[in-house]
Amino acid sequence: MFVEASYGYFRSMEVGYVDIYEKIVELLKRRGFLWPSFEIYGGLRGFVTYGPLGIELKHRIEEKWREWFIYKQGFVEIESPIIMPEVIFKASGHLDHFTDPVVECLDCKRKFRADHIIEDATGKVAEGLGIEEIEEIIEKENIKCPECGGRLGKVGQFNLMFKTTIGPYSENRGYARPEAAQGMFVEFKRIFTVTREKLPLGIAQIGKVLRNEISPRKGLIRLREFTIMEVEVFVDPEDLSCPKLSEVEDEELKLVTADMRARNEEEPLIVTAREAVDKGYISAEWQAYFMVISKYFISSLGIPWERQRFKEQMPWEKAHYSKQTFDHEIYLQRFGWVEVAGHAYRTDYDLKRHMEHSRVDLTVFKRFKEPQIIEKIVVQPLKEIIKSDFGDNAQKVFSMLKNVNPMDIKVSFDKKGYYEFDGIRIEPKHVKIEKKTEKITGRRFIPHVFEPSFGADRLVYATLECSYSVKENRVVLKLPRDLAPIQVAVFPLVNKDNLPSTAQRVWMSLRDEGIRAMYDNSGSIGRRYARADEVGVPIAVTIDYQTQKDDTVTLRDRDTWQQIRISVHDLTNELLDYFKGRKNFEELGKSSK
Amino acid sequence: MFVEASYGYFRSMEVGYVDIYEKIVELLKRRGFLWPSFEIYGGLRGFVTYGPLGIELKHRIEEKWREWFIYKQGFVEIESPIIMPEVIFKASGHLDHFTDPVVECLDCKRKFRADHIIEDATGKVAEGLGIEEIEEIIEKENIKCPECGGRLGKVGQFNLMFKTTIGPYSENRGYARPEAAQGMFVEFKRIFTVTREKLPLGIAQIGKVLRNEISPRKGLIRLREFTIMEVEVFVDPEDLSCPKLSEVEDEELKLVTADMRARNEEEPLIVTAREAVDKGYISAEWQAYFMVISKYFISSLGIPWERQRFKEQMPWEKAHYSKQTFDHEIYLQRFGWVEVAGHAYRTDYDLKRHMEHSRVDLTVFKRFKEPQIIEKIVVQPLKEIIKSDFGDNAQKVFSMLKNVNPMDIKVSFDKKGYYEFDGIRIEPKHVKIEKKTEKITGRRFIPHVFEPSFGADRLVYATLECSYSVKENRVVLKLPRDLAPIQVAVFPLVNKDNLPSTAQRVWMSLRDEGIRAMYDNSGSIGRRYARADEVGVPIAVTIDYQTQKDDTVTLRDRDTWQQIRISVHDLTNELLDYFKGRKNFEELGKSSK
Repeated sequence: MFVEASYGYFRSMEVGYVDIYEKIVELLKRRGFLWPSFEIYGGLRGFVTYGPLGIELKHRIEEKWREWFIYKQGFVEIESPIIMPEVIFKASGHLDHFTDPVVECLDCKRKFRADHIIEDATGKVAEGLGIEEIEEIIEKENIKCPECGGRLGKVGQFNLMFKTTIGPYSENRGYARPEAAQGMFVEFKRIFTVTREKLPLGIAQIGKVLRNEISPRKGLIRLREFTIMEVEVFVDPEDLSCPKLSEVEDEELKLVTADMRARNEEEPLIVTAREAVDKGYISAEWQAYFMVISKYFISSLGIPWERQRFKEQMPWEKAHYSKQTFDHEIYLQRFGWVEVAGHAYRTDYDLKRHMEHSRVDLTVFKRFKEPQIIEKIVVQPLKEIIKSDFGDNAQKVFSMLKNVNPMDIKVSFDKKGYYEFDGIRIEPKHVKIEKKTEKITGRRFIPHVFEPSFGADRLVYATLECSYSVKENRVVLKLPRDLAPIQVAVFPLVNKDNLPSTAQRVWMSLRDEGIRAMYDNSGSIGRRYARADEVGVPIAVTIDYQTQKDDTVTLRDRDTWQQIRISVHDLTNELLDYFKGRKNFEELGKSSK
Repeated sequence: MFVEASYGYFRSMEVGYVDIYEKIVELLKRRGFLWPSFEIYGGLRGFVTYGPLGIELKHRIEEKWREWFIYKQGFVEIESPIIMPEVIFKASGHLDHFTDPVVECLDCKRKFRADHIIEDATGKVAEGLGIEEIEEIIEKENIKCPECGGRLGKVGQFNLMFKTTIGPYSENRGYARPEAAQGMFVEFKRIFTVTREKLPLGIAQIGKVLRNEISPRKGLIRLREFTIMEVEVFVDPEDLSCPKLSEVEDEELKLVTADMRARNEEEPLIVTAREAVDKGYISAEWQAYFMVISKYFISSLGIPWERQRFKEQMPWEKAHYSKQTFDHEIYLQRFGWVEVAGHAYRTDYDLKRHMEHSRVDLTVFKRFKEPQIIEKIVVQPLKEIIKSDFGDNAQKVFSMLKNVNPMDIKVSFDKKGYYEFDGIRIEPKHVKIEKKTEKITGRRFIPHVFEPSFGADRLVYATLECSYSVKENRVVLKLPRDLAPIQVAVFPLVNKDNLPSTAQRVWMSLRDEGIRAMYDNSGSIGRRYARADEVGVPIAVTIDYQTQKDDTVTLRDRDTWQQIRISVHDLTNELLDYFKGRKNFEELGKSSK
């Protein structure tokens, strides 16, 4: 059993420990980023609601993901239903395998995730253990109900899919999808056709998925309903090479492989993507390629590389469909290393299963560039001789000759001078052996699949935690400028002398150009700066008395609190350049003077 | 009973009737816009999958809706869960009222929507009838099972929400939301707080909703899972005026009111938004305002005003929470007038119910601009005299004096010289009547709610049907340029002499600027134009031999097939101008020569 030693890894390195999670959760609620849903009804674990600022941040993260995993890759996006009929999850294996062990207290009747009970009682990770192993540990360690101290019952399997009925017949069971992937598999055939039958084909989807956790415990980190961002890349199993790997092969990856974990080695291995493939740490080029893209994407959210690593799943942790999975993990202060993405090599598992269950051919045909001419040996029975030599057995001989590999007969003739089966001896006089050529135009196969899959909500939280900073006792959310829900705050210095009307005109002109701008005129200017810093507004524009004299405004930088003056006339274009990353704050207004 | 005469209204006016729905469905499947989900498993009614082109179109429509109903209105967006606990739908009334009548055949055990069976058998609309009425009609008209001719059983109510269980306890029932609105109501308190407690407050949401239709029949029009785009605007019930109505009050609306429908009047009433309010056709200014915005939004999708109207729901059609509802309808060839949006005045129904069920105060406090000084009459008992006059009854007199309106006592004294109750006569000597002033700082109330609500998927279909045209036997999808999934197609004239590499460079440069461009080099140029027209690509760019001489390319307009030449150098900026609506096709390249 593997013991998770990394939990609290960074924690001990910190001086003056403060639980940032608590502080962030308070901020997110108070300013309307996100909060536990259904508060007025006492809440319900595993559900969150995004407020105005939060949904904008989430959309920006989704848009960035699209850039990295769809547009730049030339992949396509689809949207398939959340509710799917039972047969799909029968085929996919989720009905049988997508479960957690559950145990009920015989006294208070409360239900618990059985492996968590063990972890809490013994401090050892129990994920991936079988029912029998869990029961054995509960018995051996004498583990009781954590609520009432009562005796625990038998351990069972609890399926994590939300179950429902489609239409008025109770036998038409359906489930809310626990991953978007099955949509891509089930619809693969049509998408392959409409995209004109080319491989590799990448199909992406961003959408809600649901997992009916027994008792989610990690606040905003473990949700029952969340947004997934997923790609399935379909490739020819005879050509698993990734043509784009060469563009990024020198990029470094930090790996904690299954082998290392088995040896309790915590310090990650640092290798280039190419090395990782060549040395066999990562099983296929596509996996390595997506892990680099994953690093680029996550780093673009402002999450430093020091807080990222790739951890290979142990055999008992892997999903039933996966040949190799690397989790992309981010270090969070309270929770330690947390998975935000999985990179799985799903092979042909899913398509094969859907072929079996739907009885629809999901193979693809790949035409050779040139038809191939192959030479083969053909054995032709000489009917008259066979009939006269074998009499009643002649039909048996004919049928045997049809089914046997002709090469076997030729080899046997060359070696022994005859070919024998079922006590019947065929001699060269009974057949004619010829070489023939055949033209083959292509091959038919089931594609193999590589899957990078991201949890959008965890990335929202991780982005927020990594941007959280304190300056002179005030919170400054250092969100990357292109992620900030509000990009610019416009303030009149005071609420008189026409400053508000000028400020509102400036505000409107920024909005017209698609800049996410807000207007605020309440409270002192210092308080307004503080309010803007706290929700990560990169730039504040202040309209003051100087504006009335020379048409300039003050720009203030969120992170440095540096201020510069810039002409109103140049404002929009300069800000557009800033948000497109063409200029830094210090460069603003420089060209305009 | 109202008989829907409008069905097929436009149909008879068409010459050479062709079922466009069939043709569009075939096109959408073949080119990968959208198609019935789970095809390989035989499909399942009421579910669709969006392919690459369809999801792009849907996203563009959602983005346009955001522009009209969020950004331009200064409203905020949120995202709340799809799965919600039972108590919420108990409070909202959906558990009791969100039902359709269902009837089972006693022989074959098939289940049907009972009102649909009546409509099919009698041609009359039966929506909104009660269970008893339906049973009466089935009996009177001797309606049998449409499948096997068997006898029909009792009519029951079928709840249209998908039901599930949250967590491991079977008593924790949850439902997939049938509308986004409940998310806004349940989270209203926090959102009101984080947006700094201002009314009107508009909260919008775009997301999936689910309705477990008994047997959906209208193909892509009646879905069990679909995307809703919804706003709830919370206002002060004592000030239902909409400050923005004046900006659009002269805009014409086409109304078919409930009164008109009761009189079987089909021809819509054409009135300005202001008139509609003044004459009482529309019950509140906010409703009229949103109906104009709805007209602007839907017209911006390329759906002509001739194919739009607003139909008021009859009392028995309205949802249980609505005081008045207008459906925004679009005329579709096969289905007649189809609802794509609803404009409902939900009053304080939902907030009040959630207050009752959650026991959390959801009222808001509105501070008066100035505290109000009100004068009131106070009646003070003169205790000693009362005690001596009434003895044992004195306590009763004190308590009565507390609870009676002081004004009543004063009026009675003035009129009769005494005030009597329960046989006890109070005279002026028993009390002191004074005038007092009191300072009141504001009022507390439950906001009223106006709701514009749109079905994104129906709008996708309606947009496609309205853009569908045939030119010289070829399909041209005349999508508005800002909605087109692919904006520009780049073609090399032939596949040699370096034309493909130049074309690919042009393609890439367009993509880098955020233009949704595709590259196609397969088949004749004519065939490629046709393929692009069929999916609504507004502009094709062809790289030819002339390009190598003078760096110009051919631009071709989808709708007119007109061609012009333009310098490669100007291409990106000109196209950006075109897609932002700053230039028309004929104007492209003009400034560059």
